[in-house]
Amino acid sequence: MNSDSVAMTELHGKMQEQETVCIFGTGDFGRSLGLRLLQSGYNVVYGSRDPKNSLLLPKGSKVMAHAAAACEAHVIFVAVQREHYGFLKSLASTLAGKVLIDVSNNLRRGLYPESNAEYLSSLVPGATVVKAFNTISAWALQSGGLDANRQVLICGDRADAKQQVVDIAQSLGFTVLDRGSLRAAAELEDLPLQLFPLWRLPFCIAFCLTAFIFFYALTRDVIYERVTNGKDNAFRIMISLANRVFPIVSLVMLALCYLPGALAGFLQLYNGTKYRRFPDWLDRWMLCRKQLGLLALAFGFLHVLYTLVIPIRYYVRYRINVYVISLVKDNKTYEFDNTVAWRHDAYISMGILGFGLFVLLGITSLPSVSNSLNWREFSFVQSKLGYMTLLLCTAHTFLYGWDKFLRTSSYRWWMPPSYMLSLVVPCVVLILKLILIMPCVDRKVTRIRQGWERQSKTSSNCSDTKTNQPLMA
Amino acid sequence: MNSDSVAMTELHGKMQEQETVCIFGTGDFGRSLGLRLLQSGYNVVYGSRDPKNSLLLPKGSKVMAHAAAACEAHVIFVAVQREHYGFLKSLASTLAGKVLIDVSNNLRRGLYPESNAEYLSSLVPGATVVKAFNTISAWALQSGGLDANRQVLICGDRADAKQQVVDIAQSLGFTVLDRGSLRAAAELEDLPLQLFPLWRLPFCIAFCLTAFIFFYALTRDVIYERVTNGKDNAFRIMISLANRVFPIVSLVMLALCYLPGALAGFLQLYNGTKYRRFPDWLDRWMLCRKQLGLLALAFGFLHVLYTLVIPIRYYVRYRINVYVISLVKDNKTYEFDNTVAWRHDAYISMGILGFGLFVLLGITSLPSVSNSLNWREFSFVQSKLGYMTLLLCTAHTFLYGWDKFLRTSSYRWWMPPSYMLSLVVPCVVLILKLILIMPCVDRKVTRIRQGWERQSKTSSNCSDTKTNQPLMA
Amino acid sequence: MNSDSVAMTELHGKMQEQETVCIFGTGDFGRSLGLRLLQSGYNVVYGSRDPKNSLLLPKGSKVMAHAAAACEAHVIFVAVQREHYGFLKSLASTLAGKVLIDVSNNLRRGLYPESNAEYLSSLVPGATVVKAFNTISAWALQSGGLDANRQVLICGDRADAKQQVVDIAQSLGFTVLDRGSLRAAAELEDLPLQLFPLWRLPFCIAFCLTAFIFFYALTRDVIYERVTNGKDNAFRIMISLANRVFPIVSLVMLALCYLPGALAGFLQLYNGTKYRRFPDWLDRWMLCRKQLGLLALAFGFLHVLYTLVIPIRYYVRYRINVYVISLVKDNKTYEFDNTVAWRHDAYISMGILGFGLFVLLGITSLPSVSNSLNWREFSFVQSKLGYMTLLLCTAHTFLYGWDKFLRTSSYRWWMPPSYMLSLVVPCVVLILKLILIMPCVDRKVTRIRQGWERQSKTSSNCSDTKTNQPLMA
Repeated sequence: MNSDSVAMTELHGKMQEQETVCIFGTGDFGRSLGLRLLQSGYNVVYGSRDPKNSLLLPKGSKVMAHAAAACEAHVIFVAVQREHYGFLKSLASTLAGKVLIDVSNNLRRGLYPESNAEYLSSLVPGATVVKAFNTISAWALQSGGLDANRQVLICGDRADAKQQVVDIAQSLGFTVLDRGSLRAAAELEDLPLQLFPLWRLPFCIAFCLTAFIFFYALTRDVIYERVTNGKDNAFRIMISLANRVFPIVSLVMLALCYLPGALAGFLQLYNGTKYRRFPDWLDRWMLCRKQLGLLALAFGFLHVLYTLVIPIRYYVRYRINVYVISLVKDNKTYEFDNTVAWRHDAYISMGILGFGLFVLLGITSLPSVSNSLNWREFSFVQSKLGYMTLLLCTAHTFLYGWDKFLRTSSYRWWMPPSYMLSLVVPCVVLILKLILIMPCVDRKVTRIRQGWERQSKTSSNCSDTKTNQPLMA
Repeated sequence: MNSDSVAMTELHGKMQEQETVCIFGTGDFGRSLGLRLLQSGYNVVYGSRDPKNSLLLPKGSKVMAHAAAACEAHVIFVAVQREHYGFLKSLASTLAGKVLIDVSNNLRRGLYPESNAEYLSSLVPGATVVKAFNTISAWALQSGGLDANRQVLICGDRADAKQQVVDIAQSLGFTVLDRGSLRAAAELEDLPLQLFPLWRLPFCIAFCLTAFIFFYALTRDVIYERVTNGKDNAFRIMISLANRVFPIVSLVMLALCYLPGALAGFLQLYNGTKYRRFPDWLDRWMLCRKQLGLLALAFGFLHVLYTLVIPIRYYVRYRINVYVISLVKDNKTYEFDNTVAWRHDAYISMGILGFGLFVLLGITSLPSVSNSLNWREFSFVQSKLGYMTLLLCTAHTFLYGWDKFLRTSSYRWWMPPSYMLSLVVPCVVLILKLILIMPCVDRKVTRIRQGWERQSKTSSNCSDTKTNQPLMA
Repeated sequence: MNSDSVAMTELHGKMQEQETVCIFGTGDFGRSLGLRLLQSGYNVVYGSRDPKNSLLLPKGSKVMAHAAAACEAHVIFVAVQREHYGFLKSLASTLAGKVLIDVSNNLRRGLYPESNAEYLSSLVPGATVVKAFNTISAWALQSGGLDANRQVLICGDRADAKQQVVDIAQSLGFTVLDRGSLRAAAELEDLPLQLFPLWRLPFCIAFCLTAFIFFYALTRDVIYERVTNGKDNAFRIMISLANRVFPIVSLVMLALCYLPGALAGFLQLYNGTKYRRFPDWLDRWMLCRKQLGLLALAFGFLHVLYTLVIPIRYYVRYRINVYVISLVKDNKTYEFDNTVAWRHDAYISMGILGFGLFVLLGITSLPSVSNSLNWREFSFVQSKLGYMTLLLCTAHTFLYGWDKFLRTSSYRWWMPPSYMLSLVVPCVVLILKLILIMPCVDRKVTRIRQGWERQSKTSSNCSDTKTNQPLMA
């Protein structure tokens, strides 16, 4: 490489000593970007309306009027808000042939008919516009990309212009993902404005479920008591009722997180192929399984806390003390019931083990953990351990109920105890799964998932993207 | 860069407008890959046995017969299962000089004598085979690599072919790790089939320990009671016994996680150098310290939950109530014992602080957290805080036992209480560590770890790879 | 790409078959580096004082005397401790024109007046020195960069030399961040020696607060009791006192984590611009908000554990039993107080919900999670949910106190109950925030943060780096 490498560097644009980059706009983003560029060995020239009054710019950069600045460099960052793009039209001739990087974002979605980058391109048709860096915050630029998001998404119509932006982004320590032509700019500009899009459906489900179970339990436990016995139980809302609602919502949502996978399996069996698309609702459901599972875990976590504080509660201490006093006064004997002890301990134990596994599932779905697992490990954890969790939690609920469902006293106003409602979905899921793992069915499903079809015989790679994969991730 | 950069782009392969890439195989992986390539600005041509019937392919791609498709591109992805590789032989002349990327995986390990990539290379000797992308799932390709594993492992015999694959992978937003020549392909093909290889040994240890302690405690607490007093205590298995087994396993495994480091220190002292290899068993033990520690944390977590539910248990409430009733009836005075209060609170407090530190250790061993620490910070947390955790948990156990070991009644059938068993390993580790941190010994160990040797004097960099590093990570 | 790409590879240095790299030093780092370079397709030549006795070097590498080794390659890694740099002076003529990569670290900060890299450059003025890889451990090199820190920081004075180092680092699977000229080497050499620099201030605050609250509570609860009633309450230190100190420290630190943001808002209002720098103390405070928050969470976690063990404590069981016995003996009636039940349950419930949200904030501040959020999501979680947490925890404390502050008996030696102290800072923060979100003030603040100024009208990008961003991250 000795003599050759020196010759090579002359050819290579990146290696030219101190390439110059221009930045229009001296706001936060412009300044952070300039600082980072200077640190990475670029010359930086700012274009400003008022070069004399541009304070706080990083040391080592120059400030000029827009036109003069534009002449200094081939690549120009447009770090100006869209409303101020107007002045660029007058610079059109100066900017012809240059690469303009649009880094702008909007305050709301759908504010303008076309994306900022396409608007910029229409203003300066002679220049090549590349959309990039808009998902990176000024903060991420300043903090050296060490713990902030390091991925720069770019799009643009010309490959050579994009390559220059890729080079700059990589010099700055970012990784780059190309999202195609400038038509993708609208999508990129929407990204920073999204607010948990995948969480929306799970949140709705959680909210509706919580509201329904809450009013159901309220009717059974508080209103019924009030109407039939005239007792005021309203204080029970804060903890007793909460601790009735949370576990039910948690269990149902955990089951909902595994239901679509089971349904998909049956659908594939019915279709006899995995190459037919699932109905849209099933697709959308499957995409938010991870979020469903994590919400279920949050509710489960609250259930655990609410359960563990039980013995600290004033009401519980009162009840126990009154019971003991009555036992003493009435001189009754107090029998130990072995079956109750077994059942009670088993029910608590199932709950703890289920919760422990659930926490493990949650930890495994942390991005950095799931990234360090290979496919087989990930699906082992999310599928095998996931069903084990569901099984333990369902058993926990069954043991909690025990033989209550036989006693008529537990049906108030014909409403069964709320825990019984929570068992419907998990049981359906477990039964479906049981059918799917029966040897004869399993063999067929596995064959379908490996690419076999009932009619044709397309060759295909073995990894399955739909039903196996995103069980909870 | 102005005029120069344009000239440069002509030379640069990546910047040619729309490079064409061919994909053999229209299965899940082929389709996801094609979609991603299209998004990143490549032309995609599919090779298919039945071009007319290839549905669901991404928009913008073309489908042809294999031979025609192969002519369109220099780089060809072979996204076909190994069993169908046969047809490639007939295309050997068309494929000569091309770069074939083998992305295949097998269903089980050891299914074939040679790796798929080497088999492919033997079928088409004129082409250059590069193994790559087999650790990436179709899902990771689809989801844009944002939260799925972003590292592509590649291997191959020719550097220029590998460089072309590296360029494609980087354009797709992946990072690349070169694993050497095509002989490494077998190893790469095994990677997606591994199931927690580093966890196997720790799991075995945990399982054996749990089984042993369980049967030990079962004998002492349930069988002994049954045989000598005729009492049926079997219901205690669910919680009381579990809560005896979990903390013991947790403490012993935490100690086992620090034992190899201490042993290694003594071995280095004995050898007088750090450049002699450790025995194999010690090496293997040290490699799974993180896993040992995390399993210990899991058992500790269960111990905490099982302890916190104690006051909710039917059995415990029964016992307390019966006790109070008997006090009232017998009209006994109930004395407050200050020492017991101190001991009891101290024992609980140590446990809580130890568990708190343990959770901190666990959080620090999350990949994303440990990556953000430098070497000194990481070893401070895992070594200093780790030993502090061990010390607190051992103290917790000692205070729990207090003077029980003096009472003969606690030795049933000559078996000491189970908590005493759990103290052996931690005490050994703590004593070894105490010796190692004595100033005179410590000076010697530090010198050895900085590269000094008893006989020779090799210069070396100061970072130590064996004994300091992977204390728990 | 067909014929062209072959021509291209001839030009491209990276693609030449088997570039040779030289490593001076056969210590841990040198060996790990060599192994990794070999795996990535480089030829490796070691330079050693004693080539005959260099054992344990990776297979495939060659060992020579320093001068001979240096002739083999253009790029030379200097993996030797600074004290041994002397011999390089005699090789100055051989090394002229080469690229020397300084990978060294020191044992302590400030050991030498100039950085190792600058010292190396002064010893061999004819060579180009690049500082790199010093933040990467031998371990990270060995383990393939899969779960260790993958970012290589480099600095140096010549762009072409740096580019060669960048190419090598990327071939090895690392990402690179350029930190500028060789003057930055001192900073890079300090990085691996830092011990949680951002945590220092929060730790001091936590320590001082804990000490103060501890002695305050000790005086009120133990010493006062001893002096006035002669009762020995010292055993309460272990749990009761700890559980008084932890929640107070937690709440105050949580509030301290949101106070600077509120202050900054008022400062911007007062200045009428966001482009004036904040005073230094405010800047430093804002930079450690994440650490303040995480410490507050740790204290909160301990508070939860200390609270949940209450019913297990010997002292608590004793108190309850004595109370019940006294009730029975005195034949008193035991009235249920509905208000107390409400208040008690509400207070516990607020605490649980606050803690749940707090844990969520903590999870969101894990690097891998916060990286997967966009700007809007991150600020929603850290700002909206953060204030909600603060509100819930403050309400929890208020409900805990209830009307105690009215009773004179709770002022011992004129000292108010310790919980009252903890409410000062949170209330100040909540009131400041309340003012800031009043519509009239909010509109002004928003306008300022979007770049408007009272006097001038600079155009600026909309993302705000100071007050919105690092609320807890």
